[in-house]
Amino acid sequence: MKVVIVLYTAGKHAKDESRLYGCTENALGIKEELEKAGHTVVVTADKEGPESEFEKNLPDADIVITTPFHPAYLTKERIQKAKKLKLVVVAGVGSDHIDLDYINQNNLDISVLEVTGSNVVSVAEHVVMTILILVKNFVPAHEQIMAGDWDVAGIAKDSFDIENKTIATIGAGRIGYRVLERLVPFNPKELLYYDYQALPADAEKKVGARRVTDLKELVAQADIVTVNWFLVG
Amino acid sequence: MKVVIVLYTAGKHAKDESRLYGCTENALGIKEELEKAGHTVVVTADKEGPESEFEKNLPDADIVITTPFHPAYLTKERIQKAKKLKLVVVAGVGSDHIDLDYINQNNLDISVLEVTGSNVVSVAEHVVMTILILVKNFVPAHEQIMAGDWDVAGIAKDSFDIENKTIATIGAGRIGYRVLERLVPFNPKELLYYDYQALPADAEKKVGARRVTDLKELVAQADIVTVNWFLVG
Repeated sequence: MKVVIVLYTAGKHAKDESRLYGCTENALGIKEELEKAGHTVVVTADKEGPESEFEKNLPDADIVITTPFHPAYLTKERIQKAKKLKLVVVAGVGSDHIDLDYINQNNLDISVLEVTGSNVVSVAEHVVMTILILVKNFVPAHEQIMAGDWDVAGIAKDSFDIENKTIATIGAGRIGYRVLERLVPFNPKELLYYDYQALPADAEKKVGARRVTDLKELVAQADIVTVNWFLVG
Repeated sequence: MKVVIVLYTAGKHAKDESRLYGCTENALGIKEELEKAGHTVVVTADKEGPESEFEKNLPDADIVITTPFHPAYLTKERIQKAKKLKLVVVAGVGSDHIDLDYINQNNLDISVLEVTGSNVVSVAEHVVMTILILVKNFVPAHEQIMAGDWDVAGIAKDSFDIENKTIATIGAGRIGYRVLERLVPFNPKELLYYDYQALPADAEKKVGARRVTDLKELVAQADIVTVNWFLVG
C-alpha cells in the first residue's frame, strides 16, 4: 500500500516535543510502523497546486491521511486523478476539505474516516477557559499589566464571576454536553441548552440543564452564551 | 458616629458601572444610608502622610473602613492618634495593613473585622481560569495572533489538556477546596491536597481528593500545582 500523509512542518518544535504528532517530522507517530509492515509512506507539507508533492503522489496512492487545520484539499479533480484511492483518513475532526458529495454521487469506493471525538475534551476545556477569560475580563487586564499600567477600576467594572449566572449552550452534543458537565460545580443560576433533540433524561438531570426550544428565548434568558454547534456544510 | 472610608478613585469607570462599589464615587453603596441614619461620613482616596484626608480625619473617627488592595495603613502612630476609634472594617479580606499586634498588646478596645469569605468564589474561579490558561498555553497563543503570526507548532507543543493530569493544591481551605470542587468534572487523574489538617471525610470523599502530608511528595506527584495558602504574617 502507498500511504500519502499531508501534515504541517513544525521545524525545531518537532524535536522539542515528540508528542507533537501532527507535523511532518513526527508523522503521526506511525511512519516507521507502516514502513516496517512493508507499506510505502510519503509524508509532505507541500499540498498546493498540481506540482505539489501531494498531487504528484495521488495517482498511485491507496490511502491519504490529512488534517483539518492544514487541509490538503481533495477536490473533484484530484479525486479523479487518484485512481487507486480507497481510504481517506482525517487525523482529527472535520472533512470540509474533501468533496464528499462527489464521492457519494459517483458511488466511488472511497471511505472517508474521521477520528470522531478525538478533540472533544480539548475543545470543552477550551470553551470553559474562554468563558472564564471573557467574563473575568482577563485579556484587557493582562494587556494593561504588560503595558505597565494599573487601572483597577477600568478592568474591575467589566469583571464578573460565573457563579449565579445563567449559562446557555447552543448545541449540547459531544462538546456542548462536556461544557455543561464542567460548569456544574461553578454553581450557575441555571444551565440552558438548545439542540434539535433533547438530551436523554438522565444526562439532562445529571447536569441540571433545561432545554429551550426557541433560540431567541434561550439568548434572552442567558447571561453567557456558548456556541458548540457543528454545521455540516 | 463618624465613619472614615478610604477607597480608590475610579473616575469615569464609577459611572459606567454603579456596582463598582470599592471606589470613592460609589462608596461601597452605603454612604447615603449612613448619612440618613445621622452619621458623618468621610470618603477619601487620600491616605499617605500626616496631611492626608485620612490622617486628618483620624482623631475623631469612630469607624474606619479600608480595603486591602488600596490600603490605608493603620500604623501604631496612626492608631495612637485615633482616640475614638472603635471599629476597623476591611471591605474585603486581608488585614496586613493594620497593626494588629499593637492593638492586641495594648488591649485597645478596637475591633478589626474582615468580610471573611467575600472573595472566595471569585478567587477559586480565577485559579481554575489560570490553570487552564497556563496548561493550554493561552497567553503565548494570544500574543502570537495579536502580532499577526501563526506558528501552530510553537504553541501546540506546550498546550495540554487538564484531563487525566494529577492536580495538587497547597491549601484546601475556603479557596483551595472550591478549586478542587470545580476541577472534579474535568476528570483529573487524581486530585491531591496539602494542608495542616485533613478535610472532613465527607468533603474529601465529595471531591475524591487524597491528602499528602509531605510537601515534596505532593509536588513530585503532581503535573499541576496550585497554591491557595494564606500565611498569617
